[in-house]
Amino acid sequence: MVHNGIEYGDMQLICEAYDIMKRGLRMTNSEIGDVFTNWNTGVLDSFLIEITRDIMKYNDPADGTPLVEKILDSAGQKGTGKWTAINALDLGMPVTLIGESVFARCLSSIKDERGRAAQVLEGPEIPAFTGDREAAIADLEQALYASKIISYAQGFMLIREAAKEYNWKLNNPAIALMWRGGCIIRSVFLADITKAYRAKPDLENLLFDDFFKAAIHQAQPGWRRAIIRGIEFGIPTPCFSTALSFYDGYRTKDLPANLLQAQRDYFGAHTFRVKPEHQSETLPEGKDIHINWTGRGGNVSASTYLA
Amino acid sequence: MVHNGIEYGDMQLICEAYDIMKRGLRMTNSEIGDVFTNWNTGVLDSFLIEITRDIMKYNDPADGTPLVEKILDSAGQKGTGKWTAINALDLGMPVTLIGESVFARCLSSIKDERGRAAQVLEGPEIPAFTGDREAAIADLEQALYASKIISYAQGFMLIREAAKEYNWKLNNPAIALMWRGGCIIRSVFLADITKAYRAKPDLENLLFDDFFKAAIHQAQPGWRRAIIRGIEFGIPTPCFSTALSFYDGYRTKDLPANLLQAQRDYFGAHTFRVKPEHQSETLPEGKDIHINWTGRGGNVSASTYLA
Repeated sequence: MVHNGIEYGDMQLICEAYDIMKRGLRMTNSEIGDVFTNWNTGVLDSFLIEITRDIMKYNDPADGTPLVEKILDSAGQKGTGKWTAINALDLGMPVTLIGESVFARCLSSIKDERGRAAQVLEGPEIPAFTGDREAAIADLEQALYASKIISYAQGFMLIREAAKEYNWKLNNPAIALMWRGGCIIRSVFLADITKAYRAKPDLENLLFDDFFKAAIHQAQPGWRRAIIRGIEFGIPTPCFSTALSFYDGYRTKDLPANLLQAQRDYFGAHTFRVKPEHQSETLPEGKDIHINWTGRGGNVSASTYLA
Repeated sequence: MVHNGIEYGDMQLICEAYDIMKRGLRMTNSEIGDVFTNWNTGVLDSFLIEITRDIMKYNDPADGTPLVEKILDSAGQKGTGKWTAINALDLGMPVTLIGESVFARCLSSIKDERGRAAQVLEGPEIPAFTGDREAAIADLEQALYASKIISYAQGFMLIREAAKEYNWKLNNPAIALMWRGGCIIRSVFLADITKAYRAKPDLENLLFDDFFKAAIHQAQPGWRRAIIRGIEFGIPTPCFSTALSFYDGYRTKDLPANLLQAQRDYFGAHTFRVKPEHQSETLPEGKDIHINWTGRGGNVSASTYLA
């Protein structure tokens, strides 16, 4: 089922790239089709990129204009992406990219409300693009590639956690190989994943593999620039953005969740633990500690103790 | 239960602001405490900002250094945020901020793996901050405020959808008023929400209220700058970012989901509908249309038909 969620993510990532090219870089569908043709010879080479190229080039026989622009932007779903996201929440694994891709479909489907919102809510004006278009497109390719690496890494994290929970024996190379078979996500990319897991069957995380680590390091500057461009244009990139937030969080030894634990202890006496390097006589490692922060801690109503 | 999810969001937003001030702007805990003291007199005036101020100022009696910095950054949760997110997925409402805040806790809790990742995955160097610190802090306040408006708007969207689904009669002003009572999220902000729903009980979306619309328009430039700063620092802002992506998506009449629908029709003959303004004899409005995009459409294996 995880591969269905990954499909949702891959499709949404392609949509975000298309939106930036169309509205931000003011490219025609034929020009965008050329970009996908080109991307399909590189690291993004895959079935979905290939059909996107075809879609961009397909004109309505009735008037010769791009058919895709006439299609209602209200995405359907059969539920498989949703199940993956719920599964991730239940197992406590941060599969954020699939989550955002499901929510992106939900947002697309409230089309009428968006139409009313478009009339009252302001954003930046998108000026005619005067920068280096080829460079902006290269950044987008890297954003798509890096985000895709994150999405698959998250997918395998979910599978790993499920295996722990349900006592499965996993064969990760075989999983990647199987996805190459009949799946919409079939791609050159999956061959690289198969290779990574074959080389090291107990690889803790896809991001620890030398090939993908190097790939994401190389993609990183363009990935950041592409998202910044989207923010400046006012064009939403929920999946590019969540992928980068995950990456920056995952590689952070000390996240700000220490404050969150302090808040929970303050208002609800939920206790906290101490960082090993800061343990002391009064703050022993591995113990649940409660501090009466101001003499008022823990004095809120019961309904709030659940946060 | 939605208010529990909103608590998760509010807490995570505060953590993101703290992280940017600490690692990005290189501020001391006492300086950060001063910022929260100040914020607690403005639009963010609330119980959570107040206790964060106290936490920043609290020093370990043993050595006089800030206690919060010694707390393990591995967030606990009782499940209420998760239930809200699952509920949102089930009802098809894009409650992205609560979703990301739950996933942020999940990511924080794989602390050991993050420690290993921190040793191998690269990010930007965070230089000593030389810009205008007061301006950067003002941007952060706006980012927190705007993101919070989005989070509550999403929460009420979820309640609205649940009401439709389960045939509830809602009293939105009373809901906001009740949250002001015993809740951790009690704030001046909730008084503004109560006022908005009292003025217009059938308000479709909080973002359509004049007060909140003006507030988010004013917050917008700083909000965008704050996120861009986080991206440049390599400091994750999952909730600031998803809030902005939602805002930019919500106010977009034509999202790129038209491409997604074309993809689904191409590989799985899932059909699409046409935009009213583009209907024609061959593309009738309100009908499920299938195009054989290249003569190969719909010829993929059954496992892929679910996307």
